[in-house]
Amino acid sequence: MTASVSNSITVRLELPGRATAISELTGAIERTGGLITGLDITSSDTDRLKIDVTVAPRDGDHAEEIVEAMRGVAGVIVHKVSDRTFLAHLGGKIEIKSKHPIRNRDDLSMVYTPGVARVCMAIHDNPEDARRLTIKRNTIAVVTDGTAVLGLGDIGPLAAMPVMEGKAALFKRFADIDAFPICLDTKDTEEIIATVKAIAPVFAGINLEDISAPRCFDIERRLREELDIPVFHDDQHGTAIVVLAALRNALRVVGKELKDVKVVQSGAGAAGTAITRLLLAAGATHVVVSDIKGVVSCEREDIKQGTDPFLVWVAEHTNPKSVTGTLRDALKDADVFIGVSGPNILDGDDIATMNDDAIVFALANPMPEVDPTAAAQHATVVATGRSDFANQINNVLVFPGVFRGLLDAQADGIDDAIMLAAAEALADVVSPEELNPAYIIPSVFQPDISNVVARAVEKAAKQELEGERHSNKPAAEDD
Amino acid sequence: MTASVSNSITVRLELPGRATAISELTGAIERTGGLITGLDITSSDTDRLKIDVTVAPRDGDHAEEIVEAMRGVAGVIVHKVSDRTFLAHLGGKIEIKSKHPIRNRDDLSMVYTPGVARVCMAIHDNPEDARRLTIKRNTIAVVTDGTAVLGLGDIGPLAAMPVMEGKAALFKRFADIDAFPICLDTKDTEEIIATVKAIAPVFAGINLEDISAPRCFDIERRLREELDIPVFHDDQHGTAIVVLAALRNALRVVGKELKDVKVVQSGAGAAGTAITRLLLAAGATHVVVSDIKGVVSCEREDIKQGTDPFLVWVAEHTNPKSVTGTLRDALKDADVFIGVSGPNILDGDDIATMNDDAIVFALANPMPEVDPTAAAQHATVVATGRSDFANQINNVLVFPGVFRGLLDAQADGIDDAIMLAAAEALADVVSPEELNPAYIIPSVFQPDISNVVARAVEKAAKQELEGERHSNKPAAEDD
Repeated sequence: MTASVSNSITVRLELPGRATAISELTGAIERTGGLITGLDITSSDTDRLKIDVTVAPRDGDHAEEIVEAMRGVAGVIVHKVSDRTFLAHLGGKIEIKSKHPIRNRDDLSMVYTPGVARVCMAIHDNPEDARRLTIKRNTIAVVTDGTAVLGLGDIGPLAAMPVMEGKAALFKRFADIDAFPICLDTKDTEEIIATVKAIAPVFAGINLEDISAPRCFDIERRLREELDIPVFHDDQHGTAIVVLAALRNALRVVGKELKDVKVVQSGAGAAGTAITRLLLAAGATHVVVSDIKGVVSCEREDIKQGTDPFLVWVAEHTNPKSVTGTLRDALKDADVFIGVSGPNILDGDDIATMNDDAIVFALANPMPEVDPTAAAQHATVVATGRSDFANQINNVLVFPGVFRGLLDAQADGIDDAIMLAAAEALADVVSPEELNPAYIIPSVFQPDISNVVARAVEKAAKQELEGERHSNKPAAEDD
Repeated sequence: MTASVSNSITVRLELPGRATAISELTGAIERTGGLITGLDITSSDTDRLKIDVTVAPRDGDHAEEIVEAMRGVAGVIVHKVSDRTFLAHLGGKIEIKSKHPIRNRDDLSMVYTPGVARVCMAIHDNPEDARRLTIKRNTIAVVTDGTAVLGLGDIGPLAAMPVMEGKAALFKRFADIDAFPICLDTKDTEEIIATVKAIAPVFAGINLEDISAPRCFDIERRLREELDIPVFHDDQHGTAIVVLAALRNALRVVGKELKDVKVVQSGAGAAGTAITRLLLAAGATHVVVSDIKGVVSCEREDIKQGTDPFLVWVAEHTNPKSVTGTLRDALKDADVFIGVSGPNILDGDDIATMNDDAIVFALANPMPEVDPTAAAQHATVVATGRSDFANQINNVLVFPGVFRGLLDAQADGIDDAIMLAAAEALADVVSPEELNPAYIIPSVFQPDISNVVARAVEKAAKQELEGERHSNKPAAEDD
């Protein structure tokens, strides 16, 4: 564990005015391992200084230790300790704004009654106009039931809100999309489907978020069938797109082709299943998936019984050599390892059994499947989900641009072709000159990424719509 | 029909540079009855002027007539005609904003992962913290199924969106509340109830809007019983509160008391039923309600059969003298007429049969129950729902402040006591020195109205919460 700004505290304190006071204070903080990121003198007189010190601790206990160390400096009075992350959350992270000032009766008569009635009737006469005359054009729902929030599990809809608000803030920041959090007080598949369908008119897209498997598969499939707007489960498809983009570039680094390599994947949950599907759609021919019971194959007893239709699908579409056994068994001679499972299930020796120029994506967070430093001794390219190693696999690279493109195309759905286009575009952001084992995927703050992804998605989505129009034409018109 | 800014068009045109050109143009517009509200010369050279003219027409046909008149001026070239109300609706009227900038990885680590996880767990450990650390504290849903939108009827959820967005803009403008439109793709009472319950965690209040009677009564009652946040149907309760406030002041003008007067009401729909209930709660003793079948009484055949439980309630709680007959019969000797029904059902002669110092609220929109000018010849106080007569009865006076007060009190519900407090506070905004027959209710743009209403609602709601806590105490603690 290293010091993290996300645990930052700001301490307001008073110091005696002696010459060494500040260095005594900062020395005391540094001896605890706390990282000082800001020091502001707010007032000063002949014998006292008032100071705000901001420090990044490792965790809550460390924060207490740091404050105690400050108190230990002679003459220091600690007034107030603020948690910067909690301060940033007070009152929530997003708000609704009116686009127009409402200054007088004339303004009111245009944005509300009586003028609004003409706009309502225009939409009533031509429902397509809702995308022109309402927020629908640029608005999506971020929908969760709070059952699989980050790594925290089933914490419920209220506790999930900070994540959904954060996601909405990211949609605005990276793609100028208006996203609103919908946190559902039900875990029932049918109720979730019915609720999302009922509220759909306001939205041009649905981003499902942090809904646990296997319910997330049914919910997404049914909503895609029954709604005329795109439905995207970021935990599945966002992850799959960024993994495919990173894998494209990692394979370029080692000079291998996706169709030729053996990919071993650990984890067959929401993200895992989506990654498998997208790898196959992208042309992978040799994928072996392992879950907590070992390698997924048609021979395995639980899969023969067929209780989990999604796992049966994986068994039927992967593992062409029908191997059985453990993840370790499968890993031997593999070219690529992709982990979306749990912490520390492999070590450096396991990675050493892989093929030359191995690629390791150990994406479990915060503790990867294998220590990235150990893996790097035997693999050419290593990526994780963490921001403190090279090659961070981060969905923020994907979901803003994907939805921007879908909205701009006025897409009625999303499919593999669109997701493949997004992955290609994201991979191509890294130019051949930039590409190296420590840079297979760009930073989320690299400007224009969401725009590049959006344009590729928009183009692919418009081709789909064109295809739909064509296939819906009466045969006679084709003559 | 008079010219209305809500029908405004802006016409971009070119004029020849002769000295009289502008007066020829404005004269041509004025001869059609169009009201010029703006004239901007955007460029000029020796022989041509480019001009934007903004004109308020009566309606769409009149707008076309005005443009034709402009074309008729020698040398004029009309380039583009824009409808200002439609322009104000392009892309919708509200947007979502992030409260914090997300400039770099440190910002990201506080508003999103990993920092957000600590905030989630704080709410998981103490759900009350959702009102401190999320948008819930200040966020309400504006919920409709689009079945009774303005006077337009059942136009559906998409066509209802401009009204709901406008309402959200008004909530922000007048009470700094974040309101989000929820337009439901279902008219089924049970589905509406289930959907609103499912999405409730994000919100601290539900504003039902433009849902047709009698479903609105069941939906509101059930949601009030089953949710722990206030549920308010503006068409019912917003209207009832502003009517009661206006009536309080109208009675002060004529020197009568609510408990003594005979009130005749036309209309027993959503607004009508709520007005009746609130008048009785405020102390009215003699209310007679009439609907399309005549005076509501326990003797009427359809009420004996009891198919409409809400109408039975009205019959049982009004009409103490058990009169029967028509609205006109009932109106004789009445002190107050309140119309929330349809256009032109009465004339001046009917108003003449009322008691001395009659009060007439003819609220049907846009055409009142009786011509206000005719009514004013026989009544002392006349009010309508229109902005072009004195005493406009407008819900905008009520709903922002009511919700501001409910949110500030963290209220778990709303009841008659709270609504009576809101009506009293709104009535008292008009001081005794200001009060006169043409000024019984303030303008919506008078500053501080929503704050006055909010403080009264907050106080009443906190008293309710205090009472609940008291009544929930075990008996032993009361000793």
